[in-house]
Amino acid sequence: MGSNAIVGQSGGPTAVINASLAGVFEACKMRGAKHVYGMLHGVEGLLDRKYIDLNNKLGSSLEIELLKRTPSSYLGSCRYKLPHYMKDEAVYEKLFAILKELDIGYFFYIGGNDSMDTILKLADYGRQIGSDIRFMGVPKTIDNDLMVTDHTPGYGSAAKYIGSVMKEIIRDATVYGTKYVTIVEIMGRNAGWLTAAAALAKGEDCEGVDMICVPEIPFDVDQFIGRVETMQKENASVVIAVSEGVKLADGRYVCELADDVHAVDAFGHKALTGTARYLANQIARSLDTKTRAIELSTLQRCASHIGSRTDITEAYQVGGAAAKAAFEGRSGEMVALKRISNDPYQCTTELHDVHRVANLEKKVPLSWISKDQTGMTSEFLTYARPLIQAEITPVYIDGLPRHIYTK
Amino acid sequence: MGSNAIVGQSGGPTAVINASLAGVFEACKMRGAKHVYGMLHGVEGLLDRKYIDLNNKLGSSLEIELLKRTPSSYLGSCRYKLPHYMKDEAVYEKLFAILKELDIGYFFYIGGNDSMDTILKLADYGRQIGSDIRFMGVPKTIDNDLMVTDHTPGYGSAAKYIGSVMKEIIRDATVYGTKYVTIVEIMGRNAGWLTAAAALAKGEDCEGVDMICVPEIPFDVDQFIGRVETMQKENASVVIAVSEGVKLADGRYVCELADDVHAVDAFGHKALTGTARYLANQIARSLDTKTRAIELSTLQRCASHIGSRTDITEAYQVGGAAAKAAFEGRSGEMVALKRISNDPYQCTTELHDVHRVANLEKKVPLSWISKDQTGMTSEFLTYARPLIQAEITPVYIDGLPRHIYTK
Repeated sequence: MGSNAIVGQSGGPTAVINASLAGVFEACKMRGAKHVYGMLHGVEGLLDRKYIDLNNKLGSSLEIELLKRTPSSYLGSCRYKLPHYMKDEAVYEKLFAILKELDIGYFFYIGGNDSMDTILKLADYGRQIGSDIRFMGVPKTIDNDLMVTDHTPGYGSAAKYIGSVMKEIIRDATVYGTKYVTIVEIMGRNAGWLTAAAALAKGEDCEGVDMICVPEIPFDVDQFIGRVETMQKENASVVIAVSEGVKLADGRYVCELADDVHAVDAFGHKALTGTARYLANQIARSLDTKTRAIELSTLQRCASHIGSRTDITEAYQVGGAAAKAAFEGRSGEMVALKRISNDPYQCTTELHDVHRVANLEKKVPLSWISKDQTGMTSEFLTYARPLIQAEITPVYIDGLPRHIYTK
Repeated sequence: MGSNAIVGQSGGPTAVINASLAGVFEACKMRGAKHVYGMLHGVEGLLDRKYIDLNNKLGSSLEIELLKRTPSSYLGSCRYKLPHYMKDEAVYEKLFAILKELDIGYFFYIGGNDSMDTILKLADYGRQIGSDIRFMGVPKTIDNDLMVTDHTPGYGSAAKYIGSVMKEIIRDATVYGTKYVTIVEIMGRNAGWLTAAAALAKGEDCEGVDMICVPEIPFDVDQFIGRVETMQKENASVVIAVSEGVKLADGRYVCELADDVHAVDAFGHKALTGTARYLANQIARSLDTKTRAIELSTLQRCASHIGSRTDITEAYQVGGAAAKAAFEGRSGEMVALKRISNDPYQCTTELHDVHRVANLEKKVPLSWISKDQTGMTSEFLTYARPLIQAEITPVYIDGLPRHIYTK
């Protein structure tokens, strides 16, 4: 049994993925791991023997606290897809040789459904060759689209950001009292969880967004324009939250109707951008109103300055739970969050076979979308509201939030 | 002498314009104003007799604190340009009749250089007809482009936001270790103050932005692409801050090179948008790199959730100073901020004839731009750093910053 641990981060960044790294690191140290290594840029970097010894980097409790408040992936990330070992065993032989060199007993990968594919393949291969290395998945994604877990670390902070800036955008958009359609584009390729979070803005002090368009509902451009026209008869300012991934009934993304170039990544995902701009242009051509398209872009996934304390705490917890499980002999599993109750909000962790997570997507239940398909029901709000509760104060140095960074 | 005061907000919103409103309101009450009215949507709304009695709206100190933390213009805004009274005296006769009906002795207008044009014209006209109403300007603009004042309330909070999100964007952009050019578009039509604030991101914990492009320096697209190519030989991730208003040597805005529609407002200003997208597309066509365009859009002017306490305090102070001056008999002036020292940072207020402010723009001194024209000097940092210091904690209710809002 190897006496060291190694941890990697993979897929898109979040505001709290480093809190999970902190959780893995501290729990492994506490359980007696001699060294805790960090892969640089995930498995892809590890294949090039790029890693660091975290013992040398995270020496003080202040550094751990800064790590929790630092957005994006401290170790760097990758979008690398392991080949199947039946097709290319050499990659596996190389990886396991490197793990042996480093005397690794515990392997952690923090990521989403694509990253869980890596844990799945490594655990399966390891089992086949009789390796005793334990492979554990730690959930992470702003998209909230992982199976078996109540929600994913990263979602709460992104939802808190989206709710907060939506309130600000709505206040800004009403300022002239003139006709204005503001379309805010929010991340979410096939699942509308993030866009749905715009519903959180509504309250005693905010009229809320006027329409929410998620990928779960087929999108009709003409119907959309008609709805905006009707809404604007009531209110001069109309604010709409739209997923980057809204699709027509025929399956094409709305953003594909614009003439932008759309690259494709290693997992075959098209780059989606320009949905809001396309729709704002269509509105401007059809209706007598000014329009504005706002893309929240990477700001929504890296806004650690307004992170949810609930989210950061849970991100840290799932890291620790993964380490506990690995040291207790588990492998090929992912830590999931299990909600115990809403009032008071209570959540614990449990383990699930990574085969039930990898490459699958959890969408917003259709029953949580309002009948007219333009908003969210109270069930969604009851689900999402606890996840954005409480704040983690940034460490402000000289006016700006402090991060941890080593070149 | 009228016994009431009236206050309006005009021009683009900021994160702290309502702190100035709070300052005017409280100082007028303290000095014995019977009613403090608020124009709805500025002078344009007042001409339609749209106003409210603020005494009925801002009764408690909690409401005042929430007002200070609420972005955008609580009273609504306008972009209305008064005609010259030689051309259209009827507008003035109507306005002064309304002010007489309301028994107004003190008139305050919170805004930028266009709004100061309103104070200028009203004060000049009032003087001519022998009115004893006192007209005072209260400075406000994220653009920081007003003459005579060291800086403008609104700038510090926008600069703090830009510095903070730039750090987050930089962390996010480096995550894959792959070639990536991120171009962030920042507001600023003719003055680069806001874009320059991106320079604040650099520090012990952040490598900073790689290039800053302000409108004060003529822009050359080919030279720009060449510089990016050179920079990317050093670092895979290149992050650039660019003003929406960068112009070619021949005076055309860079965004006009794209094929978007550009509307023109009442002051003849073209709507500028698409600069970053245009440049990102040019880079993608010329260089072997991924690109991303991010527009900070209205997020940068309404981000009260990360406001600068220095800024909010000063915004409140200039409101109070304007009331003091008006009650002491001054008229046709604007309150300006005068910096006493940098270390420790000390700032006081003074009064200036509004003729020295209206319709003029203060640009970034060329000596504060680095010799290679891609960054800011330490003089700029010394100037800007004090303005982003300290925080004003949002009042978080149920996970989101609380605002004040009455339909």
